[in-house]
Formats: sequence, C-alpha cells, structure tokens
Amino acid sequence: MKNWDTVAIVGVGLIGGSIGMALRQKNLAKNVIGVGRSQTGLRAARRADAVTHTTVDLAKGVAAAELVIVCTPVERIVEFVRQAAQHGSERTLLTDVGSAKQPIVAALDSGLAHGTRFLGSHPLAGSEKTGVQNASPDLFDGRVAILTPTKNTRAEDFDALEAFWQSLGSVVAQMTPEQHDQAMAMTSHLPHMAAAALAATVPERYFRLVGGGLLDTTRVAAGDPELWRQILMMNRQNALQALEQYGAQLAALHAALRDDDQAGLTRLLTQAQKNRDALGR
Amino acid sequence: MKNWDTVAIVGVGLIGGSIGMALRQKNLAKNVIGVGRSQTGLRAARRADAVTHTTVDLAKGVAAAELVIVCTPVERIVEFVRQAAQHGSERTLLTDVGSAKQPIVAALDSGLAHGTRFLGSHPLAGSEKTGVQNASPDLFDGRVAILTPTKNTRAEDFDALEAFWQSLGSVVAQMTPEQHDQAMAMTSHLPHMAAAALAATVPERYFRLVGGGLLDTTRVAAGDPELWRQILMMNRQNALQALEQYGAQLAALHAALRDDDQAGLTRLLTQAQKNRDALGR
Repeated sequence: MKNWDTVAIVGVGLIGGSIGMALRQKNLAKNVIGVGRSQTGLRAARRADAVTHTTVDLAKGVAAAELVIVCTPVERIVEFVRQAAQHGSERTLLTDVGSAKQPIVAALDSGLAHGTRFLGSHPLAGSEKTGVQNASPDLFDGRVAILTPTKNTRAEDFDALEAFWQSLGSVVAQMTPEQHDQAMAMTSHLPHMAAAALAATVPERYFRLVGGGLLDTTRVAAGDPELWRQILMMNRQNALQALEQYGAQLAALHAALRDDDQAGLTRLLTQAQKNRDALGR
Repeated sequence: MKNWDTVAIVGVGLIGGSIGMALRQKNLAKNVIGVGRSQTGLRAARRADAVTHTTVDLAKGVAAAELVIVCTPVERIVEFVRQAAQHGSERTLLTDVGSAKQPIVAALDSGLAHGTRFLGSHPLAGSEKTGVQNASPDLFDGRVAILTPTKNTRAEDFDALEAFWQSLGSVVAQMTPEQHDQAMAMTSHLPHMAAAALAATVPERYFRLVGGGLLDTTRVAAGDPELWRQILMMNRQNALQALEQYGAQLAALHAALRDDDQAGLTRLLTQAQKNRDALGR
C-alpha cells in the first residue's frame, strides 16, 4: 500500500470528504489538505476528520502536495486543475472525480505547467446526497473507480493512481474517456433523467399515495439540479443518445399495451427482470 | 379494535402471508385459514405462523369465515370471490388486495351468492419481492390502504373493513374504483414501466459499472413479469395515459438538452427535486 506524504483535496464535499476520511482512517497520508471556498465548509471537513489542514488559498493548499484531487462540480474541474498545476512541480500528479471525462481529459491531457500531469478518475460512488456531512470513509469500499488514461499518460502515474483508489477499497477499471462517457450516459445519466422525468410527471395530489416502488424509482431525482445540469450538458451527445434508446423501449412497451400484445409485454417485462436481477442489489 | 372469529386468506403469498402474520401477532383473529393451491406453499405459511389452519379446498376454507380476503394475482380475483361467495352467507364479507380495482369492483359489486358482499381493498404495500418467505407482520404499518366503496356498499361493511386495515397498522383512504385506478397508474404502474424500460435499455456490457442510482431506479423491475402483465393489462387505458405523460416530460428533457437550453434543463431538474423531496424517504 502506497503511503503519501501530502494529498490535497480541492472541494471537500461528499466525494472529497469521503476520500479524506478514508485516507485519515486508513492512515494512508501524513497530511491531507482541504482546499475550499469558505471557512464554514472547511470547519465541517475538519470536524469530520476528513482533513488535517485547511485553506481557502489554492496556491498554498497544493504547493506541497504530491497528489491533488479536484472534487469540484464538473464545469470547474479544468480551471482548478490548471490553477493547481501553476503551483505544482514535476512531482505533482493531478486527478479529478468528475462524472464526465472526455472534455476534461481533452483539455488537460498535455501542456500543464511545471511538468505536472493530469490523469482522470471517476469513482462510481455518488448518491443523491451532497456535502461533507454525508461523507463516509467506506464510500469507495468495493465500488468501481474508473481511470481514463491516454497515450500521453505515464505508466508510473497510472500505477500510482491505481494504487491510490485500491487503497481506498475501490476496484479499478480502465477505459478511454470516450468509452467512459458512453457508459456513464447509460448507467448513470440516463437513470437520473428517467427518475427526474418521473418525479416531474406525478401530480402533487397523488403524493400521499406513493409506495416503495415510486420512492425507489425516483430517489436520485433528489440530487442537486445544478450539479446534474452540468453533468448532462458536459455529456450531452451521449446523454441524448441514451435517452433516445430509452424512448424506444418505452414506445415498445406502449405499443404492446395498446395493441393488447400480451406476449410482447411479457417478453419486455421478463427481459427487464432478467437484467435487473443481473445488476445485483 | 374489532376481533374476528375466523378470517380466510385465499392465496398466502407476500400480501396474504403478511396479513395472516399481522392477524396472528396482534391476536386479532381466533382462526386464520390459509387457502392455497399446493400443500408446499401452505406448509411455508404455517411455518411462518401466518395461518392457524390450511386447506386446498376453497369451499372448506371459506365456509366458517366472516371475512374472506382474496390475495391472488389480479386476473383471478373475480373468479375466486365468486366461488367463495357460493360457500358464504349473509354474514360473509369478501375483499381483495388487487392493484387494479375498476374491472374487479364492476364485476363483483352486486348479485353475489347467498347475500354475501364484496368491497374492494388495496393496501399500498407491495414490493418487487413475492412469496410468504418475504412476508412480514409489519408490512402494512403506516402504509395507506385504499377502500373503493360504491353506492351499493353497506356502511357496516365499510366500517368493518376500515377497522380491519387500521388494526393492521394501515392508514385508510377512500376512493372510487376509477379514481383508484387513475392514481395507481401514476404512482405505481408508471414507475414499474419506467423502471422496466430502463432495465431493458442498459446493455449487458455495462452491468459491472452500475452505481446506486441505476440500482434504485430499476429496483421494481425485478418484480414478477406475469403479475405485472396482469396489472398493466387490467389498468390499460390509465397506464397508457400515464406513459404518454411521462413521454412528454422525457421529450421536454430531450429538447432542453438538444437545444442547449440550460435554463429549461435546470427548471425541469429543480421541479423533479422538489417533487422527490416532497415524496419522503
């Protein structure tokens, strides 16, 4: 297990806070520096023992770090990585935890300041919750973390980041940024859109009649609209395509029901059950 | 709290079994007679202490019962209620737990044998699980149970059935069969269709990459395809209409994303979040 001297976490919310808590609890880093916008947020991170030091000054926060993890909303990742690189050195590896990868990696894959390097990460561990108050050191336990290296990625950087996520309990998978974004459109961005559209469809007068099925099916729609707007916009073409494939399945369901096609309806529901059972709990 | 001498449960699965277990645990009925198709299923019901007596003979099972609760799949409810009525008397009240009500109530609202009466029930307490092995005496605790009386319903029958569901922990709501079926199309049948179509859309190669969002959003798709085919077919017109309203929301989402309408996308996601928060946990 690799031990780090200093890791900087830019944005100590649900994911950043959970990374810090895991590093602290597993004793994987001597210093965990939380970089945030406000003292209030940083105080909460200290109270949660997610960080050993805090600062609102990015330059100071990342200067001594071998590993900088940018955990901000996706639209600001490129900007923060570039800024952090300005204060780094040949020793500095930068990564992120963004839910879309292609535009971020394309912008940061080469030419960063002072010989620093960026390698994209995405731990599949979010939820509808936000903030360090919902963070947990076990958030990554047994969950997949995707790394998106390119032809410019150094083997030792990949190995270091792979070891990092594994030490947090993650199972590391490797994909191109494009493969990642296509996959996430289906497995994460489409479920969010399906759930949000469903929550928006149900009339208020029926809210008292909801059962567990509707609650489960719409749960992720409670996620932060601003975070999700950014994610969907950043993965727009893939998200649109996933939505169209979902629309085709719904149209098939509608046609089977409308045409009294009992066999067709059973076939679709059976395929759905088979897939759902294969997904696990 | 009304105590019953003899209650018969026709079909001792998840719902029927849970009713029996609640009656037993709360000591609400002296005899709980489980009527089933097979000795194997009935043995499991006895082991779960869901029933005091069992039989595969409907006539014998219902003969002494003041209350008969038909918990079979929806397509067979009408037939079992009619059969049970043949062996009842003026003292016999019959109900069901079906997820669609209009066609069932229309068929059973009057003219049952021997002065027996039917009053439709629907406890909102199902899940993707089935069978008495998943039954629980707490299944109805704090959950809504809908009663669907008509102009033919006797007040004392309504009162008895209301007291029955309340004694199981349910909050009783009253609706017409038509109102019930419209509401359930939105709050239960549409979520199932949305989840099933989503589960059927995600390609198998991505199954290892699923996160909590997809798992939640597709959970109900694990439900029994045959039970759901029956429910959707029985509430076909309302289910189609709900599906069309969902399609309109998805189309709005698609248009906002396609047209780079950030404000429109935020509006839809914010409405969805607001609704989801209002639904509870």
